[in-house]
Amino acid sequence: MQEPEPGDVDFDAALLLQGPFPTSPGSPCDIHFMDDRRVLLCEKKAMRDRGALERWAEKYPLNLNRIMLAEGVARDVSPPASVPAPFSPIERRTMQDQTLPGILLSELRAQPPLVHCITNFVAMNIAANVLLAAGASPAMVHAEEEAGEFAAIAGALTINIGTLSSSWLRGMEAAALAASQSGKPWVLDPVAHYATLFRRAAVDRLLELGPTVIRGNASEIIALAGGESRGQGVDSRDEVEQAEESARLLARTHGATVAVTGVVDFVTDGERTARIEGGSPLMPQVTALGCSLTCLVGAFTAIRPAAPFEATVAALATFAVAGEMAASRADGPGSFSPAFLDALAALDAPLLDRHARVRSA
Amino acid sequence: MQEPEPGDVDFDAALLLQGPFPTSPGSPCDIHFMDDRRVLLCEKKAMRDRGALERWAEKYPLNLNRIMLAEGVARDVSPPASVPAPFSPIERRTMQDQTLPGILLSELRAQPPLVHCITNFVAMNIAANVLLAAGASPAMVHAEEEAGEFAAIAGALTINIGTLSSSWLRGMEAAALAASQSGKPWVLDPVAHYATLFRRAAVDRLLELGPTVIRGNASEIIALAGGESRGQGVDSRDEVEQAEESARLLARTHGATVAVTGVVDFVTDGERTARIEGGSPLMPQVTALGCSLTCLVGAFTAIRPAAPFEATVAALATFAVAGEMAASRADGPGSFSPAFLDALAALDAPLLDRHARVRSA
Amino acid sequence: MQEPEPGDVDFDAALLLQGPFPTSPGSPCDIHFMDDRRVLLCEKKAMRDRGALERWAEKYPLNLNRIMLAEGVARDVSPPASVPAPFSPIERRTMQDQTLPGILLSELRAQPPLVHCITNFVAMNIAANVLLAAGASPAMVHAEEEAGEFAAIAGALTINIGTLSSSWLRGMEAAALAASQSGKPWVLDPVAHYATLFRRAAVDRLLELGPTVIRGNASEIIALAGGESRGQGVDSRDEVEQAEESARLLARTHGATVAVTGVVDFVTDGERTARIEGGSPLMPQVTALGCSLTCLVGAFTAIRPAAPFEATVAALATFAVAGEMAASRADGPGSFSPAFLDALAALDAPLLDRHARVRSA
Repeated sequence: MQEPEPGDVDFDAALLLQGPFPTSPGSPCDIHFMDDRRVLLCEKKAMRDRGALERWAEKYPLNLNRIMLAEGVARDVSPPASVPAPFSPIERRTMQDQTLPGILLSELRAQPPLVHCITNFVAMNIAANVLLAAGASPAMVHAEEEAGEFAAIAGALTINIGTLSSSWLRGMEAAALAASQSGKPWVLDPVAHYATLFRRAAVDRLLELGPTVIRGNASEIIALAGGESRGQGVDSRDEVEQAEESARLLARTHGATVAVTGVVDFVTDGERTARIEGGSPLMPQVTALGCSLTCLVGAFTAIRPAAPFEATVAALATFAVAGEMAASRADGPGSFSPAFLDALAALDAPLLDRHARVRSA
Repeated sequence: MQEPEPGDVDFDAALLLQGPFPTSPGSPCDIHFMDDRRVLLCEKKAMRDRGALERWAEKYPLNLNRIMLAEGVARDVSPPASVPAPFSPIERRTMQDQTLPGILLSELRAQPPLVHCITNFVAMNIAANVLLAAGASPAMVHAEEEAGEFAAIAGALTINIGTLSSSWLRGMEAAALAASQSGKPWVLDPVAHYATLFRRAAVDRLLELGPTVIRGNASEIIALAGGESRGQGVDSRDEVEQAEESARLLARTHGATVAVTGVVDFVTDGERTARIEGGSPLMPQVTALGCSLTCLVGAFTAIRPAAPFEATVAALATFAVAGEMAASRADGPGSFSPAFLDALAALDAPLLDRHARVRSA
Repeated sequence: MQEPEPGDVDFDAALLLQGPFPTSPGSPCDIHFMDDRRVLLCEKKAMRDRGALERWAEKYPLNLNRIMLAEGVARDVSPPASVPAPFSPIERRTMQDQTLPGILLSELRAQPPLVHCITNFVAMNIAANVLLAAGASPAMVHAEEEAGEFAAIAGALTINIGTLSSSWLRGMEAAALAASQSGKPWVLDPVAHYATLFRRAAVDRLLELGPTVIRGNASEIIALAGGESRGQGVDSRDEVEQAEESARLLARTHGATVAVTGVVDFVTDGERTARIEGGSPLMPQVTALGCSLTCLVGAFTAIRPAAPFEATVAALATFAVAGEMAASRADGPGSFSPAFLDALAALDAPLLDRHARVRSA
């Protein structure tokens, strides 16, 4: 990664390509960071040889994102402190061997798992569409009369307390109990559990039923481990980095895999840790994507019930790569959603493994 | 329809147009089937005369879909066994005279029916948008305190048990009873009724209230008629063809019109039968489209309460043509949804009658 | 505004630009009204000098909407009676000084308010996305066990009875009471309250808890003030103009700001009145946009709890400008939704103030 120097590049005429493209030796231009995204800055003469650029882009399909004149914004180019440096090819390969997101995605597509989701009213539709696009078979079943019976036949269960009520809580408890008793993995998403007494009590009862994975934002994970979060509504007001110790503590206390999602995700089972980079700043502007990710974690744990850490990492990597692909095609949070589902459906194992950015933390 | 022979077409340079275009005598190219969609394959020299192609496409607006180089995939071109041959113009005209989808759509637009939908949380939004795009006026009302009162003033009622609970079931029963008593048609969508005891009992009670139409996927219809379905979650694991006898039996037992939807839909009132072709393989990848179709069937039965068979066929044909139009504009399941609503809103009687593919089975 | 005369313009070759562009002295063409939208009609010779047109369009970014051949439709061009004449620059500036939509939007972005929404199942997702795109932080919380506790910590509360039930009504009452007691503004959206006894009784109880703002369509506002509306389902069958007196009466009776939304919105606090122009005929074809607007009104009242009239006008102006921007990019109701969220997110104070069309009524 190079930092552009004044005079280094004729910025007014620079060409800007955004997207999750690799640091390729054949690239005719330099790659920099801008606004949390990789950006290709090309000098004026590279622009004139647009053919070479396009030939290079053709070799890396994900680069076919957006070609536009930089229009002076290049002046701000510098790697922001919060964005980790990209992994070297060697480091990346090691991580992929360890977590195998591509292999898990292939298995999920070959044998679509039935995923029992008890989620909130906001997330219902987008979460089901995320599971379908990824290749899984979602089912939304919440009534206490049937939630336990259904959890036992599903491949995995996910519980999200976003729009909680007493009757739904009874269904959640019946389902979590049945999942635990039949050895099925289940994922807990403790949405804004710190906000009210009712929520805190509900999450305490659900935690006792032994979730396999807990996924939340930084504020939720900090508060769940007994720390002082700045959370108030459903949006996180803390950074992932601040929640890492809480996540480790929580994982050890409950024998669970814990995922803290944000700009760079963090996953731990108490011993091992991983960070997953990717996604897009547009994602927090789209409601219920975190809830949908919880359901996707469920789908991957159904594929590898005995390896929830690896399954969680694979789900997060899938989400991050699809998010990165979608961001390069979106004009805002509205067009991001359909582009994200398209990207998830278009993703396959080789694409995922080529673009996933996972490393042990 | 012609099968391309090796050497017949210069595939590497073939031009590919996808979409629901008619078999037109003026077409400068041959029409084949590929992946369940009609595909236009043009020889290299037709490509050179792109002007002629574009003039032809202008005459058939639905053809303005996608023009792309075939890039070698043309090698796989052959009509898949699962896709029925297209109807001859004469056969098609006969069917249209019988079922009149265009006339019903025109009447629906001229006098938008109020459609009372009790559907699941996943389908709520997309189903309401489907009804609005088609021209109807949806209302989602489920509480037992008011569902009966509302059903009596609506033009039709639809009931879908996707995210069932005891209190909703009471609302459904009140609504179905009121609809029956006031002579309003009502449609039952028995989502995954085979999955739990609670669901099976609920559907038994609803069936006793005499639905006018029952719409389900193959697994649901087979199980509802007492057969052995392979269903588990909400997605069908059986083919429409395997459910035809079950549908006939169910129609006769309950005096209802029964629709089995899938790759090619099947409708019967116990005596008459129809098959509706169209749609897109993307549709099962979008959640709740089947549930939305149930609501659309309700809208059409409100237009023709005394002719539920014809109304159901018209609703299914409308859905199939809009799906075909949308698929040609979509890059995946995410972009399919907005394209589908756009297509539904853009559809009018002449377009519908020109592209509907309905035949007696 | 000029009315085209026969022979005035060579229509067959006219160029059509749609969008919320200003009446600019530099425009190379004439601006007319068509179908409730401003349309630029250019003579054939302007088309030939397309470069001049594009330079002009570049100066006004909102104009970069759609450039297409008019294809004969220009024959219908004439200002429809229902579209008020555009405001003069002076009149517009006066209104903006009074209501300051841009300033409120800036404040909302700088300090995202937590908005507690109790809304219906259809609106849940799109309403949350509208709030996020506008810059606010939505939270959907409805259970009676926690709705009161949560309303007290939120910046504002919104209540929508679209998919009402007894248990939700208890949550609504608890939340409205807590909001009133803690001095938080709250907004009531009495969806189809005239349709059933259950709804009418529910709205009577909620009205007693003193809503800060009431937002509805014309049929709802007329019926709420005791008048004879033509409403039946959830869609309005009356015009905004017919509801103005009802709105004034309702505002005075309840000490509330009342907003009637439709083709041209009307807002009153009993004394002052404002009309807000904009939006798109596509908006009533998209479900739950009115419900989402209710939530956005809540977000703006959280910014200015002591000035609900100004806050409501600002929210409606924001919605109208974003709707106008989105319509120029949409092909129908399906593509309108993502375009609308993109437009909301892209909107800033200068754009809003330049394009908002607000005037005292």
